[in-house]
Amino acid sequence: MTKLLNQITILKTANIAAPIGFHADGQHVGIKHKSKDLGWIYSDAIASVAGVFTTNLVQAAPVQLDKQVIQNGQLQAIIVNSGNANAVTGKIGLTHAKSMQEMAAQQLNIDSNLVAVASTGIIGNVLPIETITRGIKQLKVDGDTQGFAHAIMTTDTKEKSITIQSVIQGKPVTMSGVAKGSGMLHPNMATMLGFVTTDINIDATLLQKALSEDVETSFNQITIDGDTSTNDTVLVMANGLAGNPLISEIGSEYDQFKEMLHIVTTALSIAIANDGEGATKLIAVSVTNAKSAVDARMVAKKVVGSSLVKTAIFGKDPNWGRIIAAIGASDVALDPTIINIKINQINVLLDGTPVEFDTNMMASKLNEHDIHIDIDLHMGNESGQAWGSDLTYEYVKINALYTT
Amino acid sequence: MTKLLNQITILKTANIAAPIGFHADGQHVGIKHKSKDLGWIYSDAIASVAGVFTTNLVQAAPVQLDKQVIQNGQLQAIIVNSGNANAVTGKIGLTHAKSMQEMAAQQLNIDSNLVAVASTGIIGNVLPIETITRGIKQLKVDGDTQGFAHAIMTTDTKEKSITIQSVIQGKPVTMSGVAKGSGMLHPNMATMLGFVTTDINIDATLLQKALSEDVETSFNQITIDGDTSTNDTVLVMANGLAGNPLISEIGSEYDQFKEMLHIVTTALSIAIANDGEGATKLIAVSVTNAKSAVDARMVAKKVVGSSLVKTAIFGKDPNWGRIIAAIGASDVALDPTIINIKINQINVLLDGTPVEFDTNMMASKLNEHDIHIDIDLHMGNESGQAWGSDLTYEYVKINALYTT
Repeated sequence: MTKLLNQITILKTANIAAPIGFHADGQHVGIKHKSKDLGWIYSDAIASVAGVFTTNLVQAAPVQLDKQVIQNGQLQAIIVNSGNANAVTGKIGLTHAKSMQEMAAQQLNIDSNLVAVASTGIIGNVLPIETITRGIKQLKVDGDTQGFAHAIMTTDTKEKSITIQSVIQGKPVTMSGVAKGSGMLHPNMATMLGFVTTDINIDATLLQKALSEDVETSFNQITIDGDTSTNDTVLVMANGLAGNPLISEIGSEYDQFKEMLHIVTTALSIAIANDGEGATKLIAVSVTNAKSAVDARMVAKKVVGSSLVKTAIFGKDPNWGRIIAAIGASDVALDPTIINIKINQINVLLDGTPVEFDTNMMASKLNEHDIHIDIDLHMGNESGQAWGSDLTYEYVKINALYTT
Repeated sequence: MTKLLNQITILKTANIAAPIGFHADGQHVGIKHKSKDLGWIYSDAIASVAGVFTTNLVQAAPVQLDKQVIQNGQLQAIIVNSGNANAVTGKIGLTHAKSMQEMAAQQLNIDSNLVAVASTGIIGNVLPIETITRGIKQLKVDGDTQGFAHAIMTTDTKEKSITIQSVIQGKPVTMSGVAKGSGMLHPNMATMLGFVTTDINIDATLLQKALSEDVETSFNQITIDGDTSTNDTVLVMANGLAGNPLISEIGSEYDQFKEMLHIVTTALSIAIANDGEGATKLIAVSVTNAKSAVDARMVAKKVVGSSLVKTAIFGKDPNWGRIIAAIGASDVALDPTIINIKINQINVLLDGTPVEFDTNMMASKLNEHDIHIDIDLHMGNESGQAWGSDLTYEYVKINALYTT
């Protein structure tokens, strides 16, 4: 267990069903050849819900459905399949998403308007709805809770989950998150999915506000290949069973909630970046002293998204020329002659001028798995971060050899 | 010779010095190990000039210099080196660019304000100015005119040039162009450079207008890796020696000039895309029936720039899911349910619905070198195009293995 500020504790074992009153399952039901491909999350009590979705105009059927479902701010269950994205599947796609929703509601004996649906996998293939509805009947309320994180994976090589605990107004509270995604849009596989459960008692409007603000600095700051999925979905369920007084206005409890949410979403974001398709490196770009936080995030994301920076890091090349060129192309007003750049703590550019560095020490630093690029813009006081992975032969292989 | 509309003829042999009164040379002077690395273009008469430059805020010294030089609309010579970009080289960089300018002016016995400078190559290394000034003394007014196109190459594998001829108001006129670039920004190599010479008599203001408009549909519509160079430069010199009455207002002669310019810049753009780093394919995306030409170009460029589309084409995968996802992420208002997509003339999506196609025929089409993706948005009457290359192991290799 790791103690953080504000007495927030990260548990050694993560579990999406850890908060009071949450249940989950994840099983193999036959959508994919062998691995787990169907799972759900269920809350004993109706939870406040918040969601953010892909900004792609091409939106998968479950995304279209969920946007309606969460409008009244309430949710009790989420049913998720991998292996098929149910995207660009015509009108039958929405019918299938609704069938998934209704079948899950029936099994859980709740109103179907309280069930959200998510799908991830191949685009353009009709959902094998009979396999899925048969599969839903196999799911248990108290099933393989660890299995849920696996059931939503596609080309992911690692499960991505976190559970944290804290105390709000004397009440112990728990928050868990799971995510999947190793490209913003996979081969034909699609999608970043993220699900957060918590027993904290919080108003749905504030929950949505917290999530909408948070994703700007977490999930929206990861980039693997610059492509935006048709299925990206993040849902947060807060069922209130921790018994803290309802958080219904901005104040210290809301701030604490936001801090917890940020720890969960940032951890999941870094886990996704770390598991980028074909990645050998995690690249973390930190921009300080920007005029605005938006500027800082734009610069960070431009650098971490540059194919040339990504290939340089793969090649263990301290190629700051590509970094400064990406900064200059970020559409942010800045002065190249006052910028500092560090690569894993070694200065490479000071006040826009190249710095001689110890090439042996740099070579050793570039052998590390985590590459930190620190950029000081000297323009103001705001900061921002972004995360990504290197661009490798394996990325090309994964994305070139997968054939529809 | 190929006859086009408006009696424009493409010559079999291209030469930047083909228009009346133009001269050129390209030599090896020792900036690079073996290949040609210094060249110039010279016009007997002072020419009208127009230029467009990188939008990157980090601008190489020669770019900063040229922006001032062309302000009075006149130019007589361009001196260009490869092997070193003279970018992010501090204050000494501008001093070196001016030295190049002055030395070339001295050798040609013209005013230094009539000389533009361009550099391409490694970023952040101080220009070997003594090698260059010594080299300038070796250049001849009537030198190796074909060599100029080679002297400006970096990782390019092919020379890129074109010469066309037509008649304006009874006067035969000639226009030539050369370009270099195989990534928007190379390893540490940088840059797209383009130079157009013509003997057409045209006012400098109209020339700038024509160029500024033209690049929106030509050079700005190529993307290799989404990175923007610190050195991108396109210069057009029109010396008027063809003797046609001065084109000083918009009308049929101006339209003909624009058409000629577009043929030259588009041919060079396609040649650059075709020579993308590590490319095995040319990808040409054509968008029709968009609400506006800007929309059409945005969609085309988003698709041709998608890493997932580029890897799919490398893998000969007719992965229209990635194409429609890129279209949806283009920030253009559109309706995914009415879009048609063709890959090399085979329908894959009709009215937003997947079309069954002959997989053998598709496999054979995807073996072709040129891959045409045609997108009908069904939203209006405007169209646009973009060009790029596939994303290959070789691209990663070129960009990962090059070490500063």
